[in-house]
Amino acid sequence: MTFTKRLQERAVKVNSLVSVGLDSDASRLPESHDQLSFNKAIIDATYDIVLAYKPNTAFYEAAGAEGIAALKATCDYIHEKDPELLILLDAKRGDIGNTNNGYVSFAYDYLEADAITLHPYLGQEALAPFLERTDKGSIVLCRTSNSGSGEFQDDLFERVAGAVASEWNTNNNCLLVVGATYPEEIAKVRETVGDSMWLLVPGIGAQGGDLEATLTNGLTEAGDGLIINSSRDIIFSSSDSDFAEKAREKTKVLNEAINTHRRTTA
Amino acid sequence: MTFTKRLQERAVKVNSLVSVGLDSDASRLPESHDQLSFNKAIIDATYDIVLAYKPNTAFYEAAGAEGIAALKATCDYIHEKDPELLILLDAKRGDIGNTNNGYVSFAYDYLEADAITLHPYLGQEALAPFLERTDKGSIVLCRTSNSGSGEFQDDLFERVAGAVASEWNTNNNCLLVVGATYPEEIAKVRETVGDSMWLLVPGIGAQGGDLEATLTNGLTEAGDGLIINSSRDIIFSSSDSDFAEKAREKTKVLNEAINTHRRTTA
Repeated sequence: MTFTKRLQERAVKVNSLVSVGLDSDASRLPESHDQLSFNKAIIDATYDIVLAYKPNTAFYEAAGAEGIAALKATCDYIHEKDPELLILLDAKRGDIGNTNNGYVSFAYDYLEADAITLHPYLGQEALAPFLERTDKGSIVLCRTSNSGSGEFQDDLFERVAGAVASEWNTNNNCLLVVGATYPEEIAKVRETVGDSMWLLVPGIGAQGGDLEATLTNGLTEAGDGLIINSSRDIIFSSSDSDFAEKAREKTKVLNEAINTHRRTTA
Repeated sequence: MTFTKRLQERAVKVNSLVSVGLDSDASRLPESHDQLSFNKAIIDATYDIVLAYKPNTAFYEAAGAEGIAALKATCDYIHEKDPELLILLDAKRGDIGNTNNGYVSFAYDYLEADAITLHPYLGQEALAPFLERTDKGSIVLCRTSNSGSGEFQDDLFERVAGAVASEWNTNNNCLLVVGATYPEEIAKVRETVGDSMWLLVPGIGAQGGDLEATLTNGLTEAGDGLIINSSRDIIFSSSDSDFAEKAREKTKVLNEAINTHRRTTA
């Protein structure tokens, strides 16, 4: 089954477009927790109401081999918890073709993730080892959520969206990243790529993205097509022992806000 | 001492602009070697005639936590061998600012590398955690060596070169990647950035880059300013037990070709 098909089925089954970002910064974990035990608690508390988990590799690489082992154990735990859960590896990789094979092995053989985020700068030819994986999702950076993303992206994000939609997506396995901090750009991207392509939307929560405008501008006619990610705002909602419970509450509130919008505009 | 100063001093001391790419693909190692023992043998055979080593993270991540441990042990070995040796971590990272702190920890605290390669797509603001490290080198992708790099870079590489030279480089710690497969673009980049910025040039050897044109178009008036990297062509020169000896020969031949050109045109 293709990644997009799995995404669609999971979104219907759990009635959720929410991705929880497992940006488990070791310096911010509650007392007596390490990255793995923290992630397990977050997963236990949220797995039945999320579309996907999005661990960002940077927070694990920071601790070297030990951190990568914690990331691997986290992915294993997600698979054990529910084989239908989707893991979006937020790795923002992109090298020449020969070298990308190593990252493909990391993401898909070692971690058994379902999709990976990619830089477009080296072009379609370089990213072939990812794009050829018809069973996995290639999530290409288009308009990122950071305040300075316009430096090159102002002139480029529509070209990237167009190229990915019309040329890179021959296997129907491409998605695009568009930050919730740029809702007007979300509208342009949706117009460019049509309704069949999903968008991964970071920037909700701590980064201050606009949820309502994101949904208005990004949802497809069918009321899906968006993966709404929140990381710090969910996982670090409380720094006390009730962090997992609070994370579930935050996830439910976000999911309900999204679903209310979807029902109202359907 | 700044990274560029260390680079200049090392280049003079060993009379070499050669970087050896430790792209130690586990599937191509000689019999009875693992990544670490292979790298140690290559380092033992070449350390006195190289400017830098450039391990590409993809080849280590492919093996997960174990591979990252081998990369760490390789970096430790390089430091032990000669504290003046420079490690260019070819990681091609680039995330939003908050997240890049994790990659900074990986590259500079964990591996103790001296520089890292970076994607420009998210802009200067996002890369601040790297650019603020005045003691380390930020090597920004400009014109990559792959055959399809023109897709977005044709219109962008001169803008990236200009932005990095005039705005990103306030700490004099930026370099640019320009592939030896695009010697005309090397000339344009050198013209844009002037003689004070070093360029990292991959693509010599297996990728078929043009060494003479690269040197003619990229060397500064002082006859330096280029890090000429060769990976597969050096480290996999022989698949037999003489691989390290052959790697030294290949490194010497490349270094001599470069230095002959430098002498002739000085």
